[in-house]
Amino acid sequence: MEAFSDGVFAIAITLLILEIGVPTGSEDDLLKALADQWLSYLAYLVSFATIGAVWIKHTVITEYLDSATSVLIRLNLLLLMVVSFLPFPTRLVAEHIREEEAERVATAVYGINLLLASVLVGVLWRYAVGARPDASDEDVAMLTKRLTPSLAGYVAMIVLGLFLPVLAVVGYLAIAVYIVVPFRAMRHRVHEA
Amino acid sequence: MEAFSDGVFAIAITLLILEIGVPTGSEDDLLKALADQWLSYLAYLVSFATIGAVWIKHTVITEYLDSATSVLIRLNLLLLMVVSFLPFPTRLVAEHIREEEAERVATAVYGINLLLASVLVGVLWRYAVGARPDASDEDVAMLTKRLTPSLAGYVAMIVLGLFLPVLAVVGYLAIAVYIVVPFRAMRHRVHEA
Amino acid sequence: MEAFSDGVFAIAITLLILEIGVPTGSEDDLLKALADQWLSYLAYLVSFATIGAVWIKHTVITEYLDSATSVLIRLNLLLLMVVSFLPFPTRLVAEHIREEEAERVATAVYGINLLLASVLVGVLWRYAVGARPDASDEDVAMLTKRLTPSLAGYVAMIVLGLFLPVLAVVGYLAIAVYIVVPFRAMRHRVHEA
Amino acid sequence: MEAFSDGVFAIAITLLILEIGVPTGSEDDLLKALADQWLSYLAYLVSFATIGAVWIKHTVITEYLDSATSVLIRLNLLLLMVVSFLPFPTRLVAEHIREEEAERVATAVYGINLLLASVLVGVLWRYAVGARPDASDEDVAMLTKRLTPSLAGYVAMIVLGLFLPVLAVVGYLAIAVYIVVPFRAMRHRVHEA
Repeated sequence: MEAFSDGVFAIAITLLILEIGVPTGSEDDLLKALADQWLSYLAYLVSFATIGAVWIKHTVITEYLDSATSVLIRLNLLLLMVVSFLPFPTRLVAEHIREEEAERVATAVYGINLLLASVLVGVLWRYAVGARPDASDEDVAMLTKRLTPSLAGYVAMIVLGLFLPVLAVVGYLAIAVYIVVPFRAMRHRVHEA
Repeated sequence: MEAFSDGVFAIAITLLILEIGVPTGSEDDLLKALADQWLSYLAYLVSFATIGAVWIKHTVITEYLDSATSVLIRLNLLLLMVVSFLPFPTRLVAEHIREEEAERVATAVYGINLLLASVLVGVLWRYAVGARPDASDEDVAMLTKRLTPSLAGYVAMIVLGLFLPVLAVVGYLAIAVYIVVPFRAMRHRVHEA
Repeated sequence: MEAFSDGVFAIAITLLILEIGVPTGSEDDLLKALADQWLSYLAYLVSFATIGAVWIKHTVITEYLDSATSVLIRLNLLLLMVVSFLPFPTRLVAEHIREEEAERVATAVYGINLLLASVLVGVLWRYAVGARPDASDEDVAMLTKRLTPSLAGYVAMIVLGLFLPVLAVVGYLAIAVYIVVPFRAMRHRVHEA
Repeated sequence: MEAFSDGVFAIAITLLILEIGVPTGSEDDLLKALADQWLSYLAYLVSFATIGAVWIKHTVITEYLDSATSVLIRLNLLLLMVVSFLPFPTRLVAEHIREEEAERVATAVYGINLLLASVLVGVLWRYAVGARPDASDEDVAMLTKRLTPSLAGYVAMIVLGLFLPVLAVVGYLAIAVYIVVPFRAMRHRVHEA
């Protein structure tokens, strides 16, 4: 199960680049044309960071488990579906942002996809803990503490996106970076230095 | 052989999303444009669930086997070809459904591809059982019981699709879900609760 | 090295399907439109069988070797480049066949790519044998016997393709099938039955 | 971490071919049309060799390490992002070269991406050495000696590319080949022969 999941994560994260179109018909000022589609790069960054974050959490969960039960394999497949769906709303945001009405819809669809991935990681985690009676309370508390703010963050950002779509995308990035970057580990290093 | 197969399954299942086009020229009502292509999402869902189902069955078969014989590697390659062909009819259905004549052809081609995958899983399974003299009758009976209804189901759905294409696609989904979701395991959990 | 190589083979073989375009503007007779592009399916089949054949040979070579030397890793990278280039001439043939002049060029380019892959497998094999002093003569002779006809076959087909392009593509398929299908193993089974 | 990284490298290197467009509307002289886009093949070659070079260095680093620390996983994710971004500037160069102004921008963007990948490999390497107190000075010196010229080379080529874009792309290839091809190992073989 791990090899297959790692494969899907690796492919989904690498396919994202195919969604960014190369500006055409911009012989005179390619630099400006490239700069103008900065929102495409932002969407790319958000999706890359989010899949990276989900992958890291997924690694923690599979390491925590001894064996894959039948139900877990199915839950995992559901998570992989949500993750591999992500290139679609990424392209949606990249293409429709800056269009008054459409950008709200695109950002909301994107946010719901991100939220769903986070929810499924949570479900997978809770199931994994339930399947192991010797679960350490510390580990559970740590991950729960990490999951809760991201869920609340996504809901807040989806609502915000109805009014300020671009800000919501920046918010999605902040949530992913918050999960990926190990602040505590960094602080340790700073203290040691 | 397992690493290569897992790779092909993982890539085929992740490439599916590239077949869903983002609606363009829909600045005014992106939500409606997105909703209008619900059949694309359904086709995506069917193909994802089917590849997931084939992957699960494939895992069971390779776990069952001790070593890969020369013939088995070739049979496996044939199955992988049918699986990696699936994005093509998926796009075919997504693009041509709702076009009177074309949708019947698209749905039938799709169904035949799904049926072929199921047939090849069955062939692989029978070959695997034949290659191991100590095969447990229970395991054989269990998988046979699971394979037979899906084959019959596909044939029925292909015929139905000549008259009601959309219903056939829903039927394809039902078959894949029937294979993927471990009803027995779920019932167990309900009883335990 | 094996995980990376298996990954590249798996991806190249699965990406091939993206090169087959879904016929558009064919509402009235999709079946005819699908049948008309039979050469696309043939090119898909050839490329799939060829990558499958190279992968099988590659597996034999890496199993034969104890460790990967520095030169071997580079030779292997070269082979992977030729293999992952294959989707390009596949599309070339699929799009340009049936165009008087163009199809000769497309078929020749395709054949040269296939020949190059075969040559590199041969080089890799010779290097692998050279790196192991206890190489069994039988194994060497067996693989040499398998490699030589395919090289000669490709050269013959490339020349033939300058006059009869479609026939050359069929010939490419025949060579790949000849490598993939284990005739001896099959004969064994027939004799045993 | 290794399986995921190998997957991303394998996919990024194989996706590159999708960026080379098949010439259309060239029924009369396909050979000329194919020859005319030689810069696309060059860009493909550069990107393939560069990802190959990064992958080889990455393998050396991960072999050197005993375990993946939290910070290392994040640094690695950053490197993977830069590597999987590479198909974008590859396409950029392939499409915009030979356009007076645009080609300078495209080549510079491409070079910065390549430089960034090299910088991140260096950072990863330094971090890996720092995490292991028993680091052999020889290994460190060897890799440092290999990394420094490639960094200087990229900077020189980016500057050169503002005046002679095509030459810069050739220079990028030279740097990648310099890293990939094990000259010392080859010289050994020549001496032995």
